[in-house]
Amino acid sequence: MKMVELLMKKRNGSALTTAEINYIIEAYTAGHIPDYQMSAFLMAVFFNEMNIDERTALTNAMMQSGDVLDLSDIPGIKVDKHSTGGVGDKTSLPLASMVAALDIKVPMISGRGLGHTGGTLDKLESIPGFRVDLSEAEFKDQIRHVGTAIVSATGDIAPADRKIYALRDVTATVDSISLISSSIMSKKLATGNDALVLDVKTGSGAFMKTPEASKALAESLINIGEAAGLQMRAVISDMNQPLGREIGNRLEIVETIEMLKGQGPDDLIELCLSLGAPMVVMAGKASDEVQARQQLLDTLNTGAALAKFEAMIIAQGGNPAVIDDYALMPLAKYDIDLKATQTGKISQFDADALGMAALALGGGRATKEDQIDYSVGITMHKKLGDAVVAGEPILTLHANKADVSQELADLAAHIEISKTAEVPPLIHFVL
Amino acid sequence: MKMVELLMKKRNGSALTTAEINYIIEAYTAGHIPDYQMSAFLMAVFFNEMNIDERTALTNAMMQSGDVLDLSDIPGIKVDKHSTGGVGDKTSLPLASMVAALDIKVPMISGRGLGHTGGTLDKLESIPGFRVDLSEAEFKDQIRHVGTAIVSATGDIAPADRKIYALRDVTATVDSISLISSSIMSKKLATGNDALVLDVKTGSGAFMKTPEASKALAESLINIGEAAGLQMRAVISDMNQPLGREIGNRLEIVETIEMLKGQGPDDLIELCLSLGAPMVVMAGKASDEVQARQQLLDTLNTGAALAKFEAMIIAQGGNPAVIDDYALMPLAKYDIDLKATQTGKISQFDADALGMAALALGGGRATKEDQIDYSVGITMHKKLGDAVVAGEPILTLHANKADVSQELADLAAHIEISKTAEVPPLIHFVL
Repeated sequence: MKMVELLMKKRNGSALTTAEINYIIEAYTAGHIPDYQMSAFLMAVFFNEMNIDERTALTNAMMQSGDVLDLSDIPGIKVDKHSTGGVGDKTSLPLASMVAALDIKVPMISGRGLGHTGGTLDKLESIPGFRVDLSEAEFKDQIRHVGTAIVSATGDIAPADRKIYALRDVTATVDSISLISSSIMSKKLATGNDALVLDVKTGSGAFMKTPEASKALAESLINIGEAAGLQMRAVISDMNQPLGREIGNRLEIVETIEMLKGQGPDDLIELCLSLGAPMVVMAGKASDEVQARQQLLDTLNTGAALAKFEAMIIAQGGNPAVIDDYALMPLAKYDIDLKATQTGKISQFDADALGMAALALGGGRATKEDQIDYSVGITMHKKLGDAVVAGEPILTLHANKADVSQELADLAAHIEISKTAEVPPLIHFVL
Repeated sequence: MKMVELLMKKRNGSALTTAEINYIIEAYTAGHIPDYQMSAFLMAVFFNEMNIDERTALTNAMMQSGDVLDLSDIPGIKVDKHSTGGVGDKTSLPLASMVAALDIKVPMISGRGLGHTGGTLDKLESIPGFRVDLSEAEFKDQIRHVGTAIVSATGDIAPADRKIYALRDVTATVDSISLISSSIMSKKLATGNDALVLDVKTGSGAFMKTPEASKALAESLINIGEAAGLQMRAVISDMNQPLGREIGNRLEIVETIEMLKGQGPDDLIELCLSLGAPMVVMAGKASDEVQARQQLLDTLNTGAALAKFEAMIIAQGGNPAVIDDYALMPLAKYDIDLKATQTGKISQFDADALGMAALALGGGRATKEDQIDYSVGITMHKKLGDAVVAGEPILTLHANKADVSQELADLAAHIEISKTAEVPPLIHFVL
């Protein structure tokens, strides 16, 4: 096969065959197709997109480029959740324990953060001793005996996707539904799960800015997953403001534990139920989502989910005493309030701006090499639509530097207070 | 400026500024923008095209990357002709002499051929001793004293275009009107002419397959040229069959001389008049094209054009005796006829297939390094619409190998004889 002919074919709007896509991915990963042909190909895909067969072929080819985890020797239906990412999104942490508390296997291979706050693994590392780098044997053993584990990849997952993503990043070819969904699913299919619930974020703080665009991405992800034999469900959830009330690694662990103690914020609870219910149904532990939601709520009320979280911490080498003593996790030196300058209702709460402020405080990584400060972050006293009186604190910044005037100014510029405020729904679509 | 942002801008359908385009071309030529970003950019241009301001900026930036010839010290209006290329297209050869015979300066910087038959320079080199590599001083001197010269580039013309073209060739980004027209005009504007007539070919043997696509390219070329201050005209001419009756380097020189002796084929004469008339008018030597056509015809009838051709041969070191003794040019060993297998009218005469057959005989270059055999080629005894009787020769192949069975079979497969035949007009549009 000649790459220039495949490029021409895609450019002219024809669909590539599975054999052609396999050739492209294998030859590119092996270095036989140069970057300049691959980037032209990616741009042609950006304009002409790929049909479901092509997306499935691309996903499989990228998945097969690396290690694929086989969990078939663990009995039961393995369910996972994937989020496209948002500020303050700690959903995986309470959700995994809630679902696992219903005797469902929830193996989660998660990532670190780049930009904004840390990723799920970074958050967990706020807990002293917590290990995310389990061996495959340790990971499987924990799934068998605890029911859930949240770890970093045990092997080399989808190196073709990694190489292609690096090229997309510098050639303005990131935001293509075909490429995004194939990239996500190539990594998800490599983790050996049987069922997957997607949390596709939408809004100012999300990659997809409109519910419709998020729905299109979710549909693409579902199609690819189903073509691979997975049970798939998706929720389009709002990211016009951060999720919950805490942003920052330590703070999000605290909020998770509070939630598992029955004191979680409404939006986080609702999202966990919306995502968890289809997980429970797909695992065959409830006949419908109404029943599943009640079962999940019960795990909070009975303390079963908290117990599962504690078991996971212990299994992964963390200090479970954090559950009752948050001071065992790193604490920031300074708490500084951002106060309302007028009275009214919060009408804008830019999720991106809050994420960038948390990053500026040291809670995230601007480059891969940056060290994360687990202690810093932001607590939100108000959410969209809440009434606020001039002088009342809207946010508290938790910092290890005394001067946060720049962060305060940046935040103030991205928060609006008006007479009326429209509050977007938390759940836009359920697929 | 960051290339990834300019890429995003173009990809999203916005127009780039002249400063942005200058940056891209300068940085790419200097090696500061990698091929993989440039190829993604070219693909984005393929899909979103460029407006006239962008095309003009791209043309100028590529022109300025190399040497620009200054002919302003030669008095008079310098006129040139550019063809997008076709099989059997020797128009430049008689046309330059016809126009120069009317005391008009016709400096032509021409190219060699790749694929099909040779380029104009290769054809001229069929004449023993003919030199195409004049110095700039020799070139200008000849323009002053003979009025015309057909030479290779005296300097490094548009190296940015050369580098970009090489990338386009392997990334399926050749056939973009924006990129084609900027590429052509960057080289044409570097030759220092004041007026340019374009011969944009259309049909099965042309790059552009429909008259409308050819017209769009011609309009783009005219717009860029006029923005640079040139007088511009264009003719859309047919390339569904080869031009004239001879294909091959030596053969086309013979046909040129025959034409200058008043015995040219109808289509070649008509095309020379259609292209030459606006050249004469733009040079201010005729008030309208009707008058100009008569003046051009007179150069054939009086022998003035032939005398000019002879003067050019002498000035460029060639042996002018070829004019009366074609045997002084390389002659092929074997003449083999392709005969009609049925009676009827020639309804298809695939120009590409005839060009490929001439290449297979050795008359062109498959790669840049190939040597050309000046002697070989094809003589057409019939043209589209001509009546033919079974057994009558349609073509004669002039070869240096006895076995041309493959070439004959390939040609036979691309020639159709039917009861009726539609003959496309030679001139589709005049702009």
